[in-house]
Amino acid sequence: MYSQEFTKPDGRRLTLYSRQPIDAGIQAPSPGNDPIQANPHLRWHPLRGEWVAYASHRQGRTFMPPPEYNPLAPTIDPSVPTELPQGHYDVAVFENRFPSMAPSAHDAPPAIVETGPANGACEVVVFTQDPNTSLSQLPLDHLDLLLQVWGDRTRALGDQAQIQYVLPFENKGVEVGVTLHHPHGQIYAYPFVPPVPARMLEQQQLYYQKHQRGLLQDLIQTEIEDAQRILYQDQAAVAFVPVCARYPYEVWVAPIQPVATFMDLSPSQRSSLAKALKTVTLKFDGLWQRPFPYLMAWFQAPTDGRSHPEAHLHAEFYPPYRTRDRLKYLAGTELAAGMFANDALPEEKAKDLQAVVVTLEEPSLSV
Amino acid sequence: MYSQEFTKPDGRRLTLYSRQPIDAGIQAPSPGNDPIQANPHLRWHPLRGEWVAYASHRQGRTFMPPPEYNPLAPTIDPSVPTELPQGHYDVAVFENRFPSMAPSAHDAPPAIVETGPANGACEVVVFTQDPNTSLSQLPLDHLDLLLQVWGDRTRALGDQAQIQYVLPFENKGVEVGVTLHHPHGQIYAYPFVPPVPARMLEQQQLYYQKHQRGLLQDLIQTEIEDAQRILYQDQAAVAFVPVCARYPYEVWVAPIQPVATFMDLSPSQRSSLAKALKTVTLKFDGLWQRPFPYLMAWFQAPTDGRSHPEAHLHAEFYPPYRTRDRLKYLAGTELAAGMFANDALPEEKAKDLQAVVVTLEEPSLSV
Repeated sequence: MYSQEFTKPDGRRLTLYSRQPIDAGIQAPSPGNDPIQANPHLRWHPLRGEWVAYASHRQGRTFMPPPEYNPLAPTIDPSVPTELPQGHYDVAVFENRFPSMAPSAHDAPPAIVETGPANGACEVVVFTQDPNTSLSQLPLDHLDLLLQVWGDRTRALGDQAQIQYVLPFENKGVEVGVTLHHPHGQIYAYPFVPPVPARMLEQQQLYYQKHQRGLLQDLIQTEIEDAQRILYQDQAAVAFVPVCARYPYEVWVAPIQPVATFMDLSPSQRSSLAKALKTVTLKFDGLWQRPFPYLMAWFQAPTDGRSHPEAHLHAEFYPPYRTRDRLKYLAGTELAAGMFANDALPEEKAKDLQAVVVTLEEPSLSV
Repeated sequence: MYSQEFTKPDGRRLTLYSRQPIDAGIQAPSPGNDPIQANPHLRWHPLRGEWVAYASHRQGRTFMPPPEYNPLAPTIDPSVPTELPQGHYDVAVFENRFPSMAPSAHDAPPAIVETGPANGACEVVVFTQDPNTSLSQLPLDHLDLLLQVWGDRTRALGDQAQIQYVLPFENKGVEVGVTLHHPHGQIYAYPFVPPVPARMLEQQQLYYQKHQRGLLQDLIQTEIEDAQRILYQDQAAVAFVPVCARYPYEVWVAPIQPVATFMDLSPSQRSSLAKALKTVTLKFDGLWQRPFPYLMAWFQAPTDGRSHPEAHLHAEFYPPYRTRDRLKYLAGTELAAGMFANDALPEEKAKDLQAVVVTLEEPSLSV
């Protein structure tokens, strides 16, 4: 993997990643030249015992792009700069222009609860230069590169002293609020371990202390033995509708053996994960023969400098549909109580997805 | 308050509540006569450490009502029965026909994780016989009755040995998935304290142990002193945009002094809460001069037979809009990490709502 860092005219960082050497002479553009001085802050929610991030972005909102303007495409007309340059590269990562957390955060305003600067980081990950594709259509070695990129970002962000947790995710589809269709995800890097990963790690730690094995490691083993909900399996990776799915078409993708973070994946584990990822997204898109929206999130070990033998890198997909025509709305019991109610059995939805036949490219073609 | 219990032809319970005596001779209808034998089950989610409810409802789905059919209106044509009878009553509560939890639940199917019968309860609360109104339009004494109904349901459900927590809520508007516009809410009664209330109670217990005062009691006191985000205040109740709002137009409504459950409200506290509730919903509907969607949830003490001096009954409103035209989608950071990012400051949104002038009816007119 090749990579190169740039500084945009507005001061933000851009990193290009490629399977081939990156052209010399590339200049990083930005939609505006005014320095971005984001200053989001955190407030403590005493009743829930968690932080909430506030960012009121005033600057930059006057920019009115033409309707066909795609900020994630390479800049064609230098008078209408996008976020990305022309040149050969596969994946691009840059700091979000309107971040909920930023390294520059400072001097949080006082309030009647504890406050602090939201000094995390929010990055945009552009998966490819092609605006009209999706994860399911990318070649396996491109997905393999993307897994390496997530690892490099975990390293780069996690190396910063204040960053405790790095979460790569993709919000996909208008149904989850995404109006920009160029394939991209985001990375949020938090100055604390956020509530959901914290809860998962707590459960994993308790299990590890008791059994000296990983909770997800053992759950995966029983999922493989049960076999009913498996969507993909090879020697190193697995994809399945979990027995305890909260969303009708929820799917998890994981290495079979525990791996703490993206950085710890072996090349063969990465290659298997790429196949699992492509299989799942192909099945999703094939299910109703149309692009399938979802939230995909990758959970890994915190970047707090401690060892986390209990952690197990994996992706969870939360698709918003419960049938072809009906969305699952999160309402009273989900949002207020935190108990999910699923009117589909995971075994049934797994059958739906198992029935979608997909063909991965021959590995020899993608090398 | 008058109330009377009925059994529907399909075996479900109906309770009518009224400010006046209820007509003798009322018969409870149901859309079908086949006994409802719901058998939802729970599965343990080991990674999150929480229960998920599964209900696959096969029976009853063949019923195809005419488009104008309103199951929550009183039955006019006995050949097309709804859920409710004709006759004088103000509020009706019946068991949900397709429940996520039910007292009849038994014999959960085995799975590779722990399972159990979902023996809680799901009730529908019809706020009024008028299909074309909303909480904001109901008279104060009708809202007062509704607060009593929530108390009576908390008592009736909480008295059942297996019920640990009673959560009344309202999902309102197509934006939160509600297609039935007749004013109604729901009550979920859980055989455990669900994750979000459990987390809140844990925070409140820690605070109470340390200060011998309620966490929300003290937060309300500082909100009143800070004054910036207050929407309603009298001697007994308050409504405000909380300093730590996770949704742009989030609002909390609470008695000023700690009250554990609806059952513990004094008549004057209830009267004040009705005014606060009407003020908030009027302000919501007045903000953009159109019905304002939200999720409203009422948190109270568990019904576990123990004393909960740390608990403080209150409602939290989660409106899905962040501006007049834009929804706030819950995505990566909210659903996967559990950290909410709010691009509006609570102080600004409170100003928006403070600017909406509302007039409560003269108390003398509603007696």
